[in-house]
Amino acid sequence: MSHKKIVLIGGGTGSFALLSSLKNYTKNITGLVNMADDGGSTGILRDELGVLPPGDVRQCLVALSESSKTRDLFNYRFGEGSFKGHSFGNLFISAMEKMTNNFSEAVELASETLRITGQVLPITTEKSELVMTDTDGKITKKQFTIGNMDFAGKKRPNIALDPPGKILPEARDAIIDADVVVIAPGNLYGSLAPALVVDGVGEALAKTKAKVVYVCNLVTKPKQTDDFKVHDYASEIERFIGLPVLDYVIYNTDNPTQEILKKYASDDEFIVEVDKKALKKAHYQSIGRDLIDEQPARFDKNDAIASKRSLIRHNGDEVSKILTTL
Amino acid sequence: MSHKKIVLIGGGTGSFALLSSLKNYTKNITGLVNMADDGGSTGILRDELGVLPPGDVRQCLVALSESSKTRDLFNYRFGEGSFKGHSFGNLFISAMEKMTNNFSEAVELASETLRITGQVLPITTEKSELVMTDTDGKITKKQFTIGNMDFAGKKRPNIALDPPGKILPEARDAIIDADVVVIAPGNLYGSLAPALVVDGVGEALAKTKAKVVYVCNLVTKPKQTDDFKVHDYASEIERFIGLPVLDYVIYNTDNPTQEILKKYASDDEFIVEVDKKALKKAHYQSIGRDLIDEQPARFDKNDAIASKRSLIRHNGDEVSKILTTL
Repeated sequence: MSHKKIVLIGGGTGSFALLSSLKNYTKNITGLVNMADDGGSTGILRDELGVLPPGDVRQCLVALSESSKTRDLFNYRFGEGSFKGHSFGNLFISAMEKMTNNFSEAVELASETLRITGQVLPITTEKSELVMTDTDGKITKKQFTIGNMDFAGKKRPNIALDPPGKILPEARDAIIDADVVVIAPGNLYGSLAPALVVDGVGEALAKTKAKVVYVCNLVTKPKQTDDFKVHDYASEIERFIGLPVLDYVIYNTDNPTQEILKKYASDDEFIVEVDKKALKKAHYQSIGRDLIDEQPARFDKNDAIASKRSLIRHNGDEVSKILTTL
Repeated sequence: MSHKKIVLIGGGTGSFALLSSLKNYTKNITGLVNMADDGGSTGILRDELGVLPPGDVRQCLVALSESSKTRDLFNYRFGEGSFKGHSFGNLFISAMEKMTNNFSEAVELASETLRITGQVLPITTEKSELVMTDTDGKITKKQFTIGNMDFAGKKRPNIALDPPGKILPEARDAIIDADVVVIAPGNLYGSLAPALVVDGVGEALAKTKAKVVYVCNLVTKPKQTDDFKVHDYASEIERFIGLPVLDYVIYNTDNPTQEILKKYASDDEFIVEVDKKALKKAHYQSIGRDLIDEQPARFDKNDAIASKRSLIRHNGDEVSKILTTL
């Protein structure tokens, strides 16, 4: 067991998977979660109750939980009735936020109930909407829309929060105080950008003595990151942050079976390629390893979003080993 | 602190109030809760999810909880959106029951989460409907309807469950093993009858060496128990049980202020009177004390049912002292 203080920035499935493994390698974990989620159960709760988005926080809490029963309950989704599609954990966090008028307190009680390793923090507690401006100046709003839309060839759009959001002081302190800050794999424009563009995140990443590491996605996202190679992902990450803060980029060198590749290709999804020359020229150090998990991912049939998510995943143990021995 | 093993049979507000006090006098408490509730949030959950009724169990769990934050959360009711009127605790218990297909397991996890003193058990885990047959043979169904209807002068109706329900073995063991079994104050036909008519309850009460005590209601219920005196309540309790098992009846001798009495009288509610001659002739021992709580009861404005409930309540400390020193 390492004693390294690791901060993970993200939200969404990629963060969930990595945190689930990482907790077996160090207990000093802070998950910083973007607050832009507005789809599915979370979107309905935001609209109806005016709360901050609970979904990604719940996923990260569950990933770090040591209590299997409570974990299952937090992930349980109602399959019928007025609650159809809502996860219990989302209701827990939102009820507690409504009750106390304090999202951080809600997350704290959920953390206690789930007996988590480390901590999970919202990267900001300001209520913001994700706003994308493409290269033609066309504006698109809402994380769910942006995360799933067709960029129609207008790559590398501008991503912002409205209002711009300010980093939570505890989140800032965690970054400053960390040994390693990990930018998790995930939806580049829908999950990572909304965390990284929060006011104060770039500054904290510039100030910290921690190693700043990006764990690159395994698969391209159709109509958004087609043809992106590892260094393209990394450069987008630094564009969101606004500063060249990456010390390391971890990428995959493995290939899944032809059968899986075909299945993905039929959805216009492809393994992220590596341009070794470009990586050599980069200011960050790049680490290539075989990182694909052999185990197929599981998802809840009542979760409309998760069931569409990709099945090729990082081998969390491999990634955790690299992160804790950097 | 007494070491007496006390079992309380009931459900509803009367049980909640008494358990809240009782836990300060003994830690050996078992709350046995009727499973007939079908009104409000609970009724919707039963209809939509096909679960057992969580509402009364939640109230008893909250009463015995040592964790103030979680207690507040369990009682929190959503004030808006698709969840309007639902208490979080009801959703907790129902989600857990749906997940495990096991109501007792749901109650157990809720008990752990709430860190309760003692235990709360459903008196049966069979899904039944409350059925009333009046003296003319007219049948009325559903607990919420029966608990709030006008008996139109046809007093002392027959109350049954359909299907008849069988006592949970753990509930039976708790009764057999108790030092004192308390039949809580509460809605006679809506809350107490559905617990007492469960198959096996009468048998367990006849078999136990515990003192069997009924804590009589303070106020009559219009159109149902108008003119009922203490011994009328007690005789109805024994009629439900089917056997003369009462050892003690505890009743109130205090009178609230004229102002409160007037307020109640305007709703056709009156303090339950005492016919001392009738009590003297009874096979049980009767204990009269000043039992009215000086503190007005609080209720949640989002709880449509509780806000209609009565404001004159038992002084739980006084009742607990009597129960633990019998």
